[in-house]
Amino acid sequence: MSTASPAPLVMDAAAVQSILPEVDTLGAMRALFTELGKGQAVQPSQTLTLFPEDKGDFITYQGASTGANLFGAKLSPYLVQPGKPVITAWTVLMSMDTGQPLLLCDSGELTTERTAGTTALAVDHLAKPGAAKLAIIGSGKVAQAHLRHTAALRDWSDIHVFSPSLNENPELQQHWHALDTRVQCAQSAEAAARDADVIMLCTSSGTPVLNTTDLPPATLVTSISTNVANAHEVDPAFLSEADVYCDYRATTPASAGDMKLATEAGWSADSIRGDLAELQTTSCAAPSGDKPVFFRSIGLGLEDIFMARAVYDAAKNQS
Amino acid sequence: MSTASPAPLVMDAAAVQSILPEVDTLGAMRALFTELGKGQAVQPSQTLTLFPEDKGDFITYQGASTGANLFGAKLSPYLVQPGKPVITAWTVLMSMDTGQPLLLCDSGELTTERTAGTTALAVDHLAKPGAAKLAIIGSGKVAQAHLRHTAALRDWSDIHVFSPSLNENPELQQHWHALDTRVQCAQSAEAAARDADVIMLCTSSGTPVLNTTDLPPATLVTSISTNVANAHEVDPAFLSEADVYCDYRATTPASAGDMKLATEAGWSADSIRGDLAELQTTSCAAPSGDKPVFFRSIGLGLEDIFMARAVYDAAKNQS
Repeated sequence: MSTASPAPLVMDAAAVQSILPEVDTLGAMRALFTELGKGQAVQPSQTLTLFPEDKGDFITYQGASTGANLFGAKLSPYLVQPGKPVITAWTVLMSMDTGQPLLLCDSGELTTERTAGTTALAVDHLAKPGAAKLAIIGSGKVAQAHLRHTAALRDWSDIHVFSPSLNENPELQQHWHALDTRVQCAQSAEAAARDADVIMLCTSSGTPVLNTTDLPPATLVTSISTNVANAHEVDPAFLSEADVYCDYRATTPASAGDMKLATEAGWSADSIRGDLAELQTTSCAAPSGDKPVFFRSIGLGLEDIFMARAVYDAAKNQS
Repeated sequence: MSTASPAPLVMDAAAVQSILPEVDTLGAMRALFTELGKGQAVQPSQTLTLFPEDKGDFITYQGASTGANLFGAKLSPYLVQPGKPVITAWTVLMSMDTGQPLLLCDSGELTTERTAGTTALAVDHLAKPGAAKLAIIGSGKVAQAHLRHTAALRDWSDIHVFSPSLNENPELQQHWHALDTRVQCAQSAEAAARDADVIMLCTSSGTPVLNTTDLPPATLVTSISTNVANAHEVDPAFLSEADVYCDYRATTPASAGDMKLATEAGWSADSIRGDLAELQTTSCAAPSGDKPVFFRSIGLGLEDIFMARAVYDAAKNQS
């Protein structure tokens, strides 16, 4: 006879949204990459399953951590429907002690949070200690989350934001000001990035959104993933001019569009100076200071698992 | 704005157990293999993730069906612990319409049911219409489920059961009699199998449990999978003497221990006459009648998805 386990928590999008202010996203990412660096967490490859009859697909992101005593999976379908496709994401989190589920939660919002939290962790490691000028390219939810998670990491004197839609949308401009009074809207990506110490690219663009030629040494440029095939927010040639870091050396180079294109042009993933697991465990070199710095993330299933755990912990603390 | 979806059902082992009498396992397997045969269901490969620090592993079984408008995954961990390992299985079932979860259910019992239901579907297709004598090797839960799902498929005059432990366990013998009054306990596997039309191997043995030399033509032998590496309930040489069928041609030969060993000895998976998807859609040859017939299943993630769906349907009907 097994003792009965408590029923798993089920949290829909609204429940997750309401607990989010209590969730320590940056702390969750920090814990995850420390465990990954120590060999206490494992990141399997994601799997893509195409639905029959061109109905779409679903991607399964998995992860396991003996440090956190957890494993689980995020299922994220892309459902072809008349009109707009439906995209969702749900994570099931399971205990490594009991083999029972702890949480089933909507992860739409969490994916945005962990993407921004991962960039924030990179900024904390790779931006100059005295970095003061922040540029953000992109103005959507992902870009806003990037600001939320990096706002306290340095004493920013200037925060410049640019996106094509932001300039034509006074309401969105107000929203950004409300988020942080230091925010100023720029007229172009290059204007936003001028003299910046940190430039966060937070777009869903498949092609470069910033001219990276002649960026000053030690300037940090961060870049995220989108669904577009071979998406690259920077010119792949930039990788040969920068100190390159990524979220996870074992998986990023094969997925990141810029890295794939740069590899075709002669760049080698061997030149990656470090990843977040190595940065967290101080087992890679810091930026040289002689070149600009490029950080590229693709997102890991483990990030979804650790975000779900952070949500679970926050919900348990409240109840 | 998306409209709110109803919260998913969560069913633990007890809840699943109580609904099981209402669940049409054979019907679920029939529907699944029909869809697979028609190209309306897709079976991705299962993934195995080893936990760090030798703590065990978990296997993820996935499936998607446009016919049933569902997709999902079963997560089954093997947790190394002081004393006995903990093995569990939970399935999350999701709607292809909304991308929202419908059900999170304990699948320990369902795995037994779908394994037996798959064998039963094979018996229905591959046993002689006039088959009257049934033999069952093994006496545990999986063997009992095999009897439950095959009892009504033919007009069985004799049902002989053998396992080493059954002969020394009067209580277990009584349990089998209560299951079906036709059950007789045999003194050996060969005694149980003598003159049988259908012999179901339902053990967790890694090595042959029955001498298959000189079995009469048209005798059907069914065999299931266990965790043991290269497990084979029959001598791999039997595959060259029989009309061979399996649950799913695309995945079974690479996983089934007997098929892997037979392949090393010169047998070819090309000689498989058909699988359940082909049998359900009448797109393979029936047994020749000149040889014994061997059916081998390994279990598919799609079976877990369709079982979860059958449980969901039964629960919805009750509420």
